[in-house]
Amino acid sequence: MVEVAKKLAATRAIDEYVQNKSVVGIGSGSTIVYAVERLAERVKKENLSIVCVPTSFQAKQLIRQHDLILSDLEENPLLDIAFDGADEVDSNRVLIKGGGGCLTQEKIVASAAKNLIIVADYTKRANSLGDQWKRGIPIEVIPMSYKVVQKTIEERLGGTAELRMAKAKAGPLVTDNSNFIIDWKFTSNSTNWSEINTIIKMIPGVVETGLFIGMASKVYFGEQSGNVSTL
Amino acid sequence: MVEVAKKLAATRAIDEYVQNKSVVGIGSGSTIVYAVERLAERVKKENLSIVCVPTSFQAKQLIRQHDLILSDLEENPLLDIAFDGADEVDSNRVLIKGGGGCLTQEKIVASAAKNLIIVADYTKRANSLGDQWKRGIPIEVIPMSYKVVQKTIEERLGGTAELRMAKAKAGPLVTDNSNFIIDWKFTSNSTNWSEINTIIKMIPGVVETGLFIGMASKVYFGEQSGNVSTL
Repeated sequence: MVEVAKKLAATRAIDEYVQNKSVVGIGSGSTIVYAVERLAERVKKENLSIVCVPTSFQAKQLIRQHDLILSDLEENPLLDIAFDGADEVDSNRVLIKGGGGCLTQEKIVASAAKNLIIVADYTKRANSLGDQWKRGIPIEVIPMSYKVVQKTIEERLGGTAELRMAKAKAGPLVTDNSNFIIDWKFTSNSTNWSEINTIIKMIPGVVETGLFIGMASKVYFGEQSGNVSTL
Repeated sequence: MVEVAKKLAATRAIDEYVQNKSVVGIGSGSTIVYAVERLAERVKKENLSIVCVPTSFQAKQLIRQHDLILSDLEENPLLDIAFDGADEVDSNRVLIKGGGGCLTQEKIVASAAKNLIIVADYTKRANSLGDQWKRGIPIEVIPMSYKVVQKTIEERLGGTAELRMAKAKAGPLVTDNSNFIIDWKFTSNSTNWSEINTIIKMIPGVVETGLFIGMASKVYFGEQSGNVSTL
């Protein structure tokens, strides 16, 4: 059911936003797989000229597997559009991202795009952040700083800041940028995410946060009913 | 002359601030060499129990060469004091750091210390930032983002944002964190460094800036005269 909803959202978004000669950012995660499949279908069928900029090793491999043209931000520092998933989307289009650990590259690519389009299934929608997503806000940090950053966040913002552990190696998860991730489980029902985001990012050692504020132009949700709704 | 001044400042700072059982952050650069020498002398002579936390490979090697006790921020996330150099110090103790490329670790260690003490020679003193130091404000960035960050800084803040090139290998300099450094040569005579620092650090891809604001408790300048002055 959820997989059907992801595919619906991804297909609709690609169909509505990709034009010939677009330079396209490719996000990471399970929903993006459907977006790249649909993009490749359209490129072949309509003979589109599309250039893709990945946000992760996963995205790069998807681009290559589908014979799409691979580029990067050095060649294309300005993208027409970026497609990406999200772990949670609130009613103001504030996003939590980074469950898949690629938040930094995703935010870099999104920041270079004229529009960021989010594709998600219905389980990712929330009135307030934390309603659905219980794994906290991912924060990428320089490894030597993790304990200082944990302490600073807990002292200044409350909650618990947990070092994310790897599942296929001993010890902490290491990102594509060779950093660690802290998952901040917030307890406050604060809604001033912009201020919180600034406080966290300004802490020395913090590379990026998984809070995406004012970045998403539109969100496509695949619904249980088989429809797609937008926000 | 400058070397004498560096040694004077470093010796005075170590003598005035290091106490038995201090946990001490060790900065990077040429002036810090004198600080570690003096620290080692005092540890031996006075039989002090001191633990050192480095800000770079260089600092780690200095600590080991002088048979000092090496620790890290995982074991000691709170330091009594950190000693470091600076590329430029203005009259409000705002610093430019990162000529040596270790700005991120230096800021992390400084943020974990109750006091940051700066040791410098007289050439590092300026009324306003940029009076003496012509190499700009160092900014550590995630490699894939460098061009987007350059563009964003130049568009939003003016000046030129140059990718720092390595001198002992082809291509860009790579930091101890495997990142790149952009040197931002500002043209504005803005003095709102706090706002500028926030603008830069909030750009996706920026890991840290070399602007240290409100962090230095005291600055020791070795003077041409052979005296030491403080700020």
